[in-house]
Amino acid sequence: MPYFDAASAAPLHPVARQALLASLDEGWADPARLYREGRRARLLLDAAREAAAEAVGCRPDELVFTPSGTRAVHAGVSGALAGRRRVGNRLVVSAVEHSSVLHAGEVHTAAGGTVTEVPVDRSGAVDPAVFAAALDSGTALACLQSANHEVGTRQPVAEVAEACRAAGVPLLVDAAQSLAWGPVEDGWSLLAASAHKWGGPAGVGLLAVRKGVRFAPQGPSDERESGRAPGFENLPAIVAAAASLRAVRAEAATEGARLRDLVDRIRARVPELVPDVEVVGDPVRRLPHLVTFSCLYVDGETLLHELDREGFSVSSGSSCTSSTLTPSHVLRAMGVLSEGNVRVSLPTGTTAEDVDHFLDVLPGVVAGVRERLGAPAAPPAAPPADSGSLVVDALGRRCPIPVIELAKVIGDVPVGGTVTVLADDAAARLDIPAWCEMRGQEYVGEEASAVGGTAYVVRRRT
Amino acid sequence: MPYFDAASAAPLHPVARQALLASLDEGWADPARLYREGRRARLLLDAAREAAAEAVGCRPDELVFTPSGTRAVHAGVSGALAGRRRVGNRLVVSAVEHSSVLHAGEVHTAAGGTVTEVPVDRSGAVDPAVFAAALDSGTALACLQSANHEVGTRQPVAEVAEACRAAGVPLLVDAAQSLAWGPVEDGWSLLAASAHKWGGPAGVGLLAVRKGVRFAPQGPSDERESGRAPGFENLPAIVAAAASLRAVRAEAATEGARLRDLVDRIRARVPELVPDVEVVGDPVRRLPHLVTFSCLYVDGETLLHELDREGFSVSSGSSCTSSTLTPSHVLRAMGVLSEGNVRVSLPTGTTAEDVDHFLDVLPGVVAGVRERLGAPAAPPAAPPADSGSLVVDALGRRCPIPVIELAKVIGDVPVGGTVTVLADDAAARLDIPAWCEMRGQEYVGEEASAVGGTAYVVRRRT
Repeated sequence: MPYFDAASAAPLHPVARQALLASLDEGWADPARLYREGRRARLLLDAAREAAAEAVGCRPDELVFTPSGTRAVHAGVSGALAGRRRVGNRLVVSAVEHSSVLHAGEVHTAAGGTVTEVPVDRSGAVDPAVFAAALDSGTALACLQSANHEVGTRQPVAEVAEACRAAGVPLLVDAAQSLAWGPVEDGWSLLAASAHKWGGPAGVGLLAVRKGVRFAPQGPSDERESGRAPGFENLPAIVAAAASLRAVRAEAATEGARLRDLVDRIRARVPELVPDVEVVGDPVRRLPHLVTFSCLYVDGETLLHELDREGFSVSSGSSCTSSTLTPSHVLRAMGVLSEGNVRVSLPTGTTAEDVDHFLDVLPGVVAGVRERLGAPAAPPAAPPADSGSLVVDALGRRCPIPVIELAKVIGDVPVGGTVTVLADDAAARLDIPAWCEMRGQEYVGEEASAVGGTAYVVRRRT
Repeated sequence: MPYFDAASAAPLHPVARQALLASLDEGWADPARLYREGRRARLLLDAAREAAAEAVGCRPDELVFTPSGTRAVHAGVSGALAGRRRVGNRLVVSAVEHSSVLHAGEVHTAAGGTVTEVPVDRSGAVDPAVFAAALDSGTALACLQSANHEVGTRQPVAEVAEACRAAGVPLLVDAAQSLAWGPVEDGWSLLAASAHKWGGPAGVGLLAVRKGVRFAPQGPSDERESGRAPGFENLPAIVAAAASLRAVRAEAATEGARLRDLVDRIRARVPELVPDVEVVGDPVRRLPHLVTFSCLYVDGETLLHELDREGFSVSSGSSCTSSTLTPSHVLRAMGVLSEGNVRVSLPTGTTAEDVDHFLDVLPGVVAGVRERLGAPAAPPAAPPADSGSLVVDALGRRCPIPVIELAKVIGDVPVGGTVTVLADDAAARLDIPAWCEMRGQEYVGEEASAVGGTAYVVRRRT
């Protein structure tokens, strides 16, 4: 049963399991105590810190363990902002950061700070020059992920780090998705990551803060983890996390190349096998194991459900799969289609057979969902005589229905005529322009609608 | 090799180990995902929450899992204070709370709030009437531990809860030390606890917030754990924590009675076997497994080291065993001797033989430490003719030397004469009065010293 959602959580690496079991016996005591069980725990903790620091590329005393990658980001952002409070209160982040960065930004905004989001291109990458331009003398901290968690695009970390250095702004790199594959390019000031993304156990994140970076931990602290992560250390899990990081790094080159080939196969074959698909994310500068595509006229939740029935576990950034019924902020920032969105992230050890089986199953699953939704099967027929413009009322209908209704009637207006779609589903704002781009139609823009929702105007070109 | 520091951390309960192993296979996926691995994880998480809530005595939707007991306290205190910000900014705590509560109080103070510490008696318990008197119309939150972590004294939680109810103030109970032995008496509004204190794994705390309590989570949050504990859930550890809580509760009555007898044996025998010992904490209203005593004229660090050499792992509240070189705030608040302090906390399964062996070894170890420190062996001899007063210079000498020097010369002044001890060690302020009480001498008070440190004045009575 292929599990294709390694970017959410990876099954425990065998090395992690072994290390966890051993340290349940050896590492349960308080490493702050002076008796033998405590000293043994301290030795394990020190060794884990050294191993993790080596993999990160920092000094052991620059690295602390946190209860999760999310908490590492929260502690890193708040500590760095507070450490540079006198410099200014601006936080600069890319628009496609992990939600943990954005949530930390919301808290900063609520406390009177400002957050500047640097836009990304259609591949999901920031432009280093645009990022640099966002840095000003009042910028306390900049955040950039090493690679995007939804579409796999690697960010130009070295260039942005250089811009930050030139501007005198510390850079926090969220390396959660990439640390398994290698160290982050040099130049960062703070780095956060999460063990369960690299086959370590849940309950362990890491936060590295370079010596010399102004850092003032926020919230209550205690004597543990240099005052940066309070509470009893989760030692067996920390030991397992460090051991598995070392293990996945040893396999990273060969396994990365193998998975990269499998992802290339998905990237090439899906558009051949499934009509009306957009594969998103940078095809080259990307994580080896992750690919995302979106299928027109498909309801993401149903698609995931059908794939699950066929034995495939994947995730989605479609609005219907989120609790807020809004599309993924990453897809939104990229301006790409969000309906029928599928993220495939291959865990270590995924076989070519698993991938081929997925490619065998996917076309039928997508076709089945489209058929049930009444999606248009073919491009519009020859235009009728006239009927210059049409209005489609999709108010109250959820993704992908507004786009399906648009596609059904575009053939009913002449070239040059317009279709106006009334919709109140959040995904429409993203998906109607994306549909136009995929279909070679002109997206005119949106207007207020007298009857509620928003009026999206499309002009027929072909 | 007897491990007698269960109050710091308990070895993993066999049931916890079994549950952890099973859920490493079944519970590694993201419980927020819709595919089968995610649904399986969600089922495990729900079941763990139900089991924990039953043991706590609350509804499952009132309970969230946190990364540690410390983090549960921090989240509980900050959320409850923020939820009642409009009522006032006073936090009322007992003087003997766990450091996590005090650290949360420090953050509150730094943010402009006020913290009122309710004193305790010599047994370590608060007086409910005194606690009630500290509650005023501007009190946002009160905190009281269910039982003290250093001396085992149970607090009058029900009476204090009733006083809080009458004053309209929510009560947070830190139940970290007692939850293994049974639910907390009713009447609390918030409750925090820590799994590794009951034989669960590290990395799991729990926070219960009663419905109707105003609560505003502080810091960044996400969709996990009702927005009260951000970050990927540490699911295998949560499952193990819930399973072991259920297991220790099933054994609590019989095991509690057995350990209570063993602790009674220590409480009775130590003062018989070791001269100049003070057993502290309430002898009756106490945790079943924990006892603390202090030995005059003994250096705590050396004592722990010697006991460790004999195979016994215990902890201490002596100043020399703390990184700040100040005695435990608990012993200080109780006004009891802190030098030569030993806390014995018996894990489940401790045998009578282990305890008897400890009682066999302890007298020789204490005598050895005293001999090396030159402690006075016997009460003062008959007073000499006169020499009305004496000054002892113990400046720069650490605990227990100032007390030893005092004891050496008290026989050199006549009854009614005084000894003035010059000392700059923080423990002297606690231990010189405690010595006077143990020895039936009069503690006159402290004075500023012209040559540095503090002058502690003692009048000979016997």
